[in-house]
Amino acid sequence: MAKVVRTIQRAAADVIDGLGRCGVATVHEAQGRIGLLASRLRPIYPGARIAGSAVTISAPPGDNWMIHVAIEQLQGGDILVLAPTSPCEDGYFGDLLATSAMTRGCRGLVIDAGVRDVRDLTEMGFPVWSKAIYAQGTVKATLGSVNVPIVCAGAPIEAGDVIVADDDGVCVVRRADAASVLDKALTREAAEEGKRRRLAAGELGLDIYSMREKLAAMGLVYE
Amino acid sequence: MAKVVRTIQRAAADVIDGLGRCGVATVHEAQGRIGLLASRLRPIYPGARIAGSAVTISAPPGDNWMIHVAIEQLQGGDILVLAPTSPCEDGYFGDLLATSAMTRGCRGLVIDAGVRDVRDLTEMGFPVWSKAIYAQGTVKATLGSVNVPIVCAGAPIEAGDVIVADDDGVCVVRRADAASVLDKALTREAAEEGKRRRLAAGELGLDIYSMREKLAAMGLVYE
Amino acid sequence: MAKVVRTIQRAAADVIDGLGRCGVATVHEAQGRIGLLASRLRPIYPGARIAGSAVTISAPPGDNWMIHVAIEQLQGGDILVLAPTSPCEDGYFGDLLATSAMTRGCRGLVIDAGVRDVRDLTEMGFPVWSKAIYAQGTVKATLGSVNVPIVCAGAPIEAGDVIVADDDGVCVVRRADAASVLDKALTREAAEEGKRRRLAAGELGLDIYSMREKLAAMGLVYE
Amino acid sequence: MAKVVRTIQRAAADVIDGLGRCGVATVHEAQGRIGLLASRLRPIYPGARIAGSAVTISAPPGDNWMIHVAIEQLQGGDILVLAPTSPCEDGYFGDLLATSAMTRGCRGLVIDAGVRDVRDLTEMGFPVWSKAIYAQGTVKATLGSVNVPIVCAGAPIEAGDVIVADDDGVCVVRRADAASVLDKALTREAAEEGKRRRLAAGELGLDIYSMREKLAAMGLVYE
Amino acid sequence: MAKVVRTIQRAAADVIDGLGRCGVATVHEAQGRIGLLASRLRPIYPGARIAGSAVTISAPPGDNWMIHVAIEQLQGGDILVLAPTSPCEDGYFGDLLATSAMTRGCRGLVIDAGVRDVRDLTEMGFPVWSKAIYAQGTVKATLGSVNVPIVCAGAPIEAGDVIVADDDGVCVVRRADAASVLDKALTREAAEEGKRRRLAAGELGLDIYSMREKLAAMGLVYE
Amino acid sequence: MAKVVRTIQRAAADVIDGLGRCGVATVHEAQGRIGLLASRLRPIYPGARIAGSAVTISAPPGDNWMIHVAIEQLQGGDILVLAPTSPCEDGYFGDLLATSAMTRGCRGLVIDAGVRDVRDLTEMGFPVWSKAIYAQGTVKATLGSVNVPIVCAGAPIEAGDVIVADDDGVCVVRRADAASVLDKALTREAAEEGKRRRLAAGELGLDIYSMREKLAAMGLVYE
Repeated sequence: MAKVVRTIQRAAADVIDGLGRCGVATVHEAQGRIGLLASRLRPIYPGARIAGSAVTISAPPGDNWMIHVAIEQLQGGDILVLAPTSPCEDGYFGDLLATSAMTRGCRGLVIDAGVRDVRDLTEMGFPVWSKAIYAQGTVKATLGSVNVPIVCAGAPIEAGDVIVADDDGVCVVRRADAASVLDKALTREAAEEGKRRRLAAGELGLDIYSMREKLAAMGLVYE
Repeated sequence: MAKVVRTIQRAAADVIDGLGRCGVATVHEAQGRIGLLASRLRPIYPGARIAGSAVTISAPPGDNWMIHVAIEQLQGGDILVLAPTSPCEDGYFGDLLATSAMTRGCRGLVIDAGVRDVRDLTEMGFPVWSKAIYAQGTVKATLGSVNVPIVCAGAPIEAGDVIVADDDGVCVVRRADAASVLDKALTREAAEEGKRRRLAAGELGLDIYSMREKLAAMGLVYE
Repeated sequence: MAKVVRTIQRAAADVIDGLGRCGVATVHEAQGRIGLLASRLRPIYPGARIAGSAVTISAPPGDNWMIHVAIEQLQGGDILVLAPTSPCEDGYFGDLLATSAMTRGCRGLVIDAGVRDVRDLTEMGFPVWSKAIYAQGTVKATLGSVNVPIVCAGAPIEAGDVIVADDDGVCVVRRADAASVLDKALTREAAEEGKRRRLAAGELGLDIYSMREKLAAMGLVYE
Repeated sequence: MAKVVRTIQRAAADVIDGLGRCGVATVHEAQGRIGLLASRLRPIYPGARIAGSAVTISAPPGDNWMIHVAIEQLQGGDILVLAPTSPCEDGYFGDLLATSAMTRGCRGLVIDAGVRDVRDLTEMGFPVWSKAIYAQGTVKATLGSVNVPIVCAGAPIEAGDVIVADDDGVCVVRRADAASVLDKALTREAAEEGKRRRLAAGELGLDIYSMREKLAAMGLVYE
Repeated sequence: MAKVVRTIQRAAADVIDGLGRCGVATVHEAQGRIGLLASRLRPIYPGARIAGSAVTISAPPGDNWMIHVAIEQLQGGDILVLAPTSPCEDGYFGDLLATSAMTRGCRGLVIDAGVRDVRDLTEMGFPVWSKAIYAQGTVKATLGSVNVPIVCAGAPIEAGDVIVADDDGVCVVRRADAASVLDKALTREAAEEGKRRRLAAGELGLDIYSMREKLAAMGLVYE
Repeated sequence: MAKVVRTIQRAAADVIDGLGRCGVATVHEAQGRIGLLASRLRPIYPGARIAGSAVTISAPPGDNWMIHVAIEQLQGGDILVLAPTSPCEDGYFGDLLATSAMTRGCRGLVIDAGVRDVRDLTEMGFPVWSKAIYAQGTVKATLGSVNVPIVCAGAPIEAGDVIVADDDGVCVVRRADAASVLDKALTREAAEEGKRRRLAAGELGLDIYSMREKLAAMGLVYE
């Protein structure tokens, strides 16, 4: 059952990068409020904002062997995404693995478990979104799989899906939907820009979105 | 039952600002160790330190409609305080709402739920204390109330109460008590300054506070 | 039963400092993956990296009296380590106690409870690893003990044991093992340095650690 | 600041008992979905269903002294309601205190902390809703207050308010609203009985509540 | 985007019932340790053991409208499975909905949120596995979907998949795999029966599974 | 480093059984409020009340191999006590292992992780105190140790220490202290019996413990 899928499809690089510039909140809205990973995944340092293609890892609790296997499958622009097969907060990943992943152009790690060496990772500029920071070591004793479908922090992810991650958390976009989601995200950004200008000028959302009538109709009372 | 109270009393501006300079820990002590919100509320970036008058919001889970309503009620120096009617971590608030709130002089948001666009909010210098950072969107389908009494993160808060928030968390001071609490806080600060100097000079708390006798009387043994 | 042990053994200063330079993850690995405190202990600001001798405190919930007692027992290079006798997140420690502890050369605090005044502590450069940041005050009504064996965040700690703490968390090294653990940590660091260079040059862990055969033998399939 | 209010108003006994028969879910709905305590409060055994007048206790963490004080204030039909001044799971209450409380006609305990001797309490038929079951003992060293307003598990409660508790959790009804809430609850029960019969006969909520048109209008698509 | 899929495929009734008799732990092992829902889902009363076809519900936080829609889609032997679109513990379901669901032969509810009226549900013998018991009511204001793929408590579930639930929790079996998983489960049960008899007779697992050599080879030392 | 200690000292059988009859709360008080395991350990069914000698297990996350090893070390009256080396909720133990353990006279399991087959275990009358109920399987790939000192749910435990467990949780008594703790527990029980009778007769704790003067002296005010 343990397997490594070597050939995966990826979205177009410019689409991926475009999604990264839009950021998690916008992309999540643009695709209809789906694809968000649970809020327990937090960045190990503020300010990182990445997008890339998912190289997925299904790993046993406390066993990081498959990360070594996955790194060989990385291409430039990829993001490692690890889901343990049962809840775990061990530190699967540290500066040595990051050093290796960076040589292959890896943009970051999303892991529903723990990470360690975060000071080194911060200095190296290798961003990680994790459930925990924990120095607890792992073993290399049991197989898992690479580039199979996983559920990471509540979101189903397939290899090659686009991962977007920033200070707001992590979102996944189906590879096949990436271009259309980017279109919607850019449209949304443009619309937001107009609204932002009006709001900054002091107009109220109540007026811009014509909410007053509906609020009154539903029974909101001003005292 | 859904209503907006338009006229609220506020404490004097200099009292509010004075409480803000004292900070959460001092104010909390000065008023007898009451009024603290639960520790799950954390600032989205370090270093912010604010005080202001509460404009309260009671909102349904996953529904941020009432924030638009509340923003119209803001005056310069106010702080939005939102309590969901059941536990929720959705991202009720982002950069557009912050843009609007800032035009009315709002000093920040305290929310026992989630927030998003935290990178933008950080750049804008709009501080938020929240239970979660989560890009999950909300709807505008159900009414809530503005400027009614709420319980936020365990603390009862009325509109116009003074909110003090910094890296230690969030504290509420009853509007009617604000001036006397400020007096006590300043007295406490002055007393602490004297103690700080003595402690910095190497004196021990055991001696400054005359603890040795009481410890011995209660049976503390030195080996 | 409440007692203060005044005379404790400490490890050699250069050994302690050497362990501090190695950091938590390396030390934890070097001593066979034991001694880690639970991941709920987090630093109040990033970048601190300390090692020192534990002055242990067993304190009742919500009562910080024994910290005053413990400070008198501090020597230069020590670290305060507090375990409440039942789970508690109150703010046992703030800037006044830090001022006092620093005059005695204390390097930091590890506490399985809360801390407050974190802005001041950050400015003072006094690092704390805690379970919570919470302004809730404590009383001085019930005795505890100082320099007795405690269990802090899941790890047994004796007075004089070496505490290592950084952005990855906190680890304890038995005093008697400190020198040999440092040896192993340095050996490990040297070995890692070689691996880091090979990994940075693009070699794969799969090859450096000769994993391919074992993976195949265990049944890993490449598709 | 520590005080005991000896004279409190209570709701009429038949109103209280009527609310108890309606149960938490019905009462909570009848009063407009307010007054619910957080779901972390769970009964120590299934099947208990009580209502009574709140005798409130504000107690320090790990200190159960005020329960002794509160028991003297109990009248037949009362319920003890304890909120610690900071989060705590210590076992404040056991079989001795229950024995004492029962002699005064106390119907149960609601506590946002821990309880112990649950086997004895179960055999005695003394119901408790608590955050934890934990044998950890408490001290009697610091004052608190009795029959002052508290916030327990997120809900503001005043002495004499009506507490309703069953397998669904705990709800508070303002004393002044008790009679009218009971009216609404009974009306609701009657209406539910009719709906229950129609539903049991196989009619669908979609038809009983005329939902089909609104669902279609909002865009629900059947495939 | 909100839709109801009316036609779904179901596994054969005898296969479903067979899986139910095997129970969660055996089925989970038989299919290679996949498909388990998170341990936060617990039964509202002990002893229930069911299997059925999933009728899936994706619902907004605090909005149970889609349950009414889903009930119309139920056939005898089905199980309702609800995942909120963001974390929520509100009580989506009570005795009225259970009354309705039971008329259509529904065997139970699996919900990654809250439930209420648990005393009534227990008396009715309608089993529920939920994240919380909470009387908090919900609204009917926003659409969701029925019989679309969902992720419930970390497990991807499609309409018509087989749900197995007992005191150990909840497991999902892909509809297409149900028959073969049942075969494996029965084989496993038979094998376990033999082992159980040998173990009950006092033989050790160390000998039955021939572990002694491998343990020694890996370095286990007996002192 | 992985080892099995085959010879351990046990307390006298009548002392162990006496402690079991006293129960967790009494024993915990009798030995000075130490030795309690964290409240996250809960019994899988109500009413069990056991005491026995600890056979300790230190096991890797998700790996139950060492339980097989430990069972061989069991003697009649022993209790298995397992602490994972990092936090884990996998189901380490089920009905087959219980069958084996029972043949050797094992009285129960205390585990800071998960357990499964709880319906079978309940029917077999094999009590377990665990952090989780979770069907997730484990592997047999990595060594641990048996009868070494462990920290389980926050409490340090050595092989041969006396474990007492009931509906209130779990407590450990040092083997060497067992007889004297039993003495104190029996004394305490006798004293409690007298107090229970006086309390049942309607006397108040305020009077029995002469609290009124001290409360007044500390400033408690009756209104």
